[in-house]
Amino acid sequence: MAESPITPRSRDFAAWYQDVVLQGDLAEPAEIVKGCMVIKPNGYAVWEMLQRELDTRFKASGHQNVYFPLLIPQSFLRREAEHVEGFSPELAVVTIAGGKELEEPYVIRPTSETIIGHFFARWIQSWRDLSMLVNQWANVVRWELRTRLFLRTSEFLWQEGHTAHATHEEALEEVLRMLRVYAEVAEDVMAMPVIQGVKTKAEKFAGALRSYSIEAMMQNGLALQAGTSHDLGQNFGKAFDVKFQSKEGQLEHVWQTSWGVSTRLIGGLIMSHSDDKGLVLPPRLAPVKTVLVPIYRKDEERGNVLEAAHKIGAGVGAKVDDREGQTPGSKFFHWERLGVPLVLELGPRDLASGSIVMKRRDTGAKQSLPQAELASALPAALDAMQQDLYRAAKERLKANTVLANSLGEVQSILADVTAEKGGGKFVMAHLKDDLGCDAQLKEFKATVRNIPLVDEFDGPGKCIITGEPVDRRVVIAKAY
Amino acid sequence: MAESPITPRSRDFAAWYQDVVLQGDLAEPAEIVKGCMVIKPNGYAVWEMLQRELDTRFKASGHQNVYFPLLIPQSFLRREAEHVEGFSPELAVVTIAGGKELEEPYVIRPTSETIIGHFFARWIQSWRDLSMLVNQWANVVRWELRTRLFLRTSEFLWQEGHTAHATHEEALEEVLRMLRVYAEVAEDVMAMPVIQGVKTKAEKFAGALRSYSIEAMMQNGLALQAGTSHDLGQNFGKAFDVKFQSKEGQLEHVWQTSWGVSTRLIGGLIMSHSDDKGLVLPPRLAPVKTVLVPIYRKDEERGNVLEAAHKIGAGVGAKVDDREGQTPGSKFFHWERLGVPLVLELGPRDLASGSIVMKRRDTGAKQSLPQAELASALPAALDAMQQDLYRAAKERLKANTVLANSLGEVQSILADVTAEKGGGKFVMAHLKDDLGCDAQLKEFKATVRNIPLVDEFDGPGKCIITGEPVDRRVVIAKAY
Repeated sequence: MAESPITPRSRDFAAWYQDVVLQGDLAEPAEIVKGCMVIKPNGYAVWEMLQRELDTRFKASGHQNVYFPLLIPQSFLRREAEHVEGFSPELAVVTIAGGKELEEPYVIRPTSETIIGHFFARWIQSWRDLSMLVNQWANVVRWELRTRLFLRTSEFLWQEGHTAHATHEEALEEVLRMLRVYAEVAEDVMAMPVIQGVKTKAEKFAGALRSYSIEAMMQNGLALQAGTSHDLGQNFGKAFDVKFQSKEGQLEHVWQTSWGVSTRLIGGLIMSHSDDKGLVLPPRLAPVKTVLVPIYRKDEERGNVLEAAHKIGAGVGAKVDDREGQTPGSKFFHWERLGVPLVLELGPRDLASGSIVMKRRDTGAKQSLPQAELASALPAALDAMQQDLYRAAKERLKANTVLANSLGEVQSILADVTAEKGGGKFVMAHLKDDLGCDAQLKEFKATVRNIPLVDEFDGPGKCIITGEPVDRRVVIAKAY
Repeated sequence: MAESPITPRSRDFAAWYQDVVLQGDLAEPAEIVKGCMVIKPNGYAVWEMLQRELDTRFKASGHQNVYFPLLIPQSFLRREAEHVEGFSPELAVVTIAGGKELEEPYVIRPTSETIIGHFFARWIQSWRDLSMLVNQWANVVRWELRTRLFLRTSEFLWQEGHTAHATHEEALEEVLRMLRVYAEVAEDVMAMPVIQGVKTKAEKFAGALRSYSIEAMMQNGLALQAGTSHDLGQNFGKAFDVKFQSKEGQLEHVWQTSWGVSTRLIGGLIMSHSDDKGLVLPPRLAPVKTVLVPIYRKDEERGNVLEAAHKIGAGVGAKVDDREGQTPGSKFFHWERLGVPLVLELGPRDLASGSIVMKRRDTGAKQSLPQAELASALPAALDAMQQDLYRAAKERLKANTVLANSLGEVQSILADVTAEKGGGKFVMAHLKDDLGCDAQLKEFKATVRNIPLVDEFDGPGKCIITGEPVDRRVVIAKAY
């Protein structure tokens, strides 16, 4: 496998992506299970690091982890009209269990608002029980026809936060708080700049009043919705009769939120930073941050180099690749494809001069430095790489964000854009939040990604379709 | 809920267990999803701590986490004859997905040997690819008719380790290594003594050559199988054609193992240590180890006590329960039921004397000590409690382990034992590992738990059923 070439991004971005995923030991298609994947060791290790970053922040903001059943009575989905319509085409249905046909089938959760609504109704009686703030780490199934590793698979791993509040105001605060948490993890941890905004009515979650998202730009200019946070209003509260007695003694329906990110983030990570040599991981998400490759040709060099390598490795926390029967070249190649941020080279000449060579995965820059400085140089280099990756992604986002003042202009900018050929842009245009406007974009396969919370452009203007005044420009793009 | 009484163990152990689970905020039945449960915040937090203890040890012994699909083509299970027979009655089957009847149904994984066998065949070609050591954290579904929270539910959370080796010897080493890891976590972390041993042929995993288990004794004397480690031989290797080229150039089938523990461990934890007041958690698995309850009657005391409480709490890492509108009594009651190991009380008199009261959850012993000594007293008290819980459980195990030298004796010892009434024993008897012998025990609802790896009794003897010579006594008990 390590010998297979990686398709260059310029030739076919989609093929490049698949190559990076496979050769980075991140995942592979399951094939025998339609649209599913196997998450492999390097991919799962990245997911564990992401989980820890997110989970720590969820707990710090008062959320508790819980676990609800995988299976949901089919009738539950029907209780919220938009919700069932949104998810019905994607459901996997269990009709037989324990050797018998079931009277009422179960669906495998595509998301858990309904079953959690059922339990919130049991648990919430009074304003004293609010806010109720829970999260679950789980697998969900949405049957997909066209799938891509990490980006769209029939089963995926995610977290889903679910909260209930006494007032709409508190619920909205929660929705935006968690959106900010997602943006922080995307930017500070994944080094992936995002635009926080509200989805249009056409693009909102089935059953929500309003959905908010973070949107990132991939290297091919396509948009990736990287996380969503939903203001569910009282929709599920009413559907599942979740009521509480207010301080004033009134019985009221709760206001709910839900928010989630998934293994899709790993797809975003890959397409933000990786290059034609394979995976590039930002240091904060690299399971192995530094590898030391000992170099020796003659047998008499071997002992000294290995001894020094292990001593240095132990001192600075670098993994020493002391595998026998592999050339240094094939070791460099191996760690490069796995996205290890820093690789150290130590040979007899370095040994003699008390130096060591450090190579950065992103820039390929090599630097020889005194061994004594390594302990301080490594964290500095990792930190610099983390910052540089963010800066590069941010610059790419800026460079590929353009203004348009007519529908024709939007269309022509995005006309030839595909996931394979790339060339995508974030087109900022004034557009009304209206089902008809979204539908017109769909005709050329573009969508409104979101309406940014912060306007970084020129404020109000006239909708490029209806001519009506709107508040600010929205992000239009082709997307995953 | 906090006001409901807990059934005393002596009256009905099974009802006591259910009460402890519900009132300890550990789990509740899902009801609307047959045999499933919701894992609540305190229960999930304990699971997370258990996961961390296990996962750290898996990684330290060279295993990598991965994730395989939830759904398995139904035909996969049929490839291993014993395996399909063992699991068929318990399967949940997906027959419809994406709005269409499936040509081949999928089963929700009851365990993943088959699908992992399929991928091992893809990944393993040469002896260089071995040993392959992976683990996954996942949910599994086995449709159960009679369920008990944590102990037996239709869906449960677990980890399943899967490994492939070049030789049977290496596979067996792995099987026993992971059994020891389970025993270590049970004893050192859960404070739950276990007996390591091999299952009889009648009780082994469907598809294994040999299964090994750790068995614990609950307070009612019933046995709980707390973890299993299987020597799969070449059974799945042959069923899924997992072959490798040996160093000698021969094509050979791999030797596989699998091993798992589940949320069932939480049931074992509860039934090892809890009492008639509710949950007792060993300190190493307590999400909250120490709570400080400030006590004041008059408004003018409040400020000083709270200020000191927060200062002390921050200093020693104790959670300060400063909720308004709750009496200290109801706070003590609350934390007692949640199983918090240490509760501190701080009132005006303590403030005046510079002392503080520390109460241990297990013994109920109260101790007043100088505030200045608290920082060192807390870890010592937690450590002592951890040791004491283990010692008490170990003594109970010894006190309720008896020898028997005839089948009649075994039967009469276990005759009146039920999960409700208790009175269970581990009956050590010489018994042949033979399907017929196991069947005779089943007639009075007893089973061989395992054949201990280490004989702590009198060595060889004659089988109490067949009269044939056997190596050592086995553990016979009624079990969950």
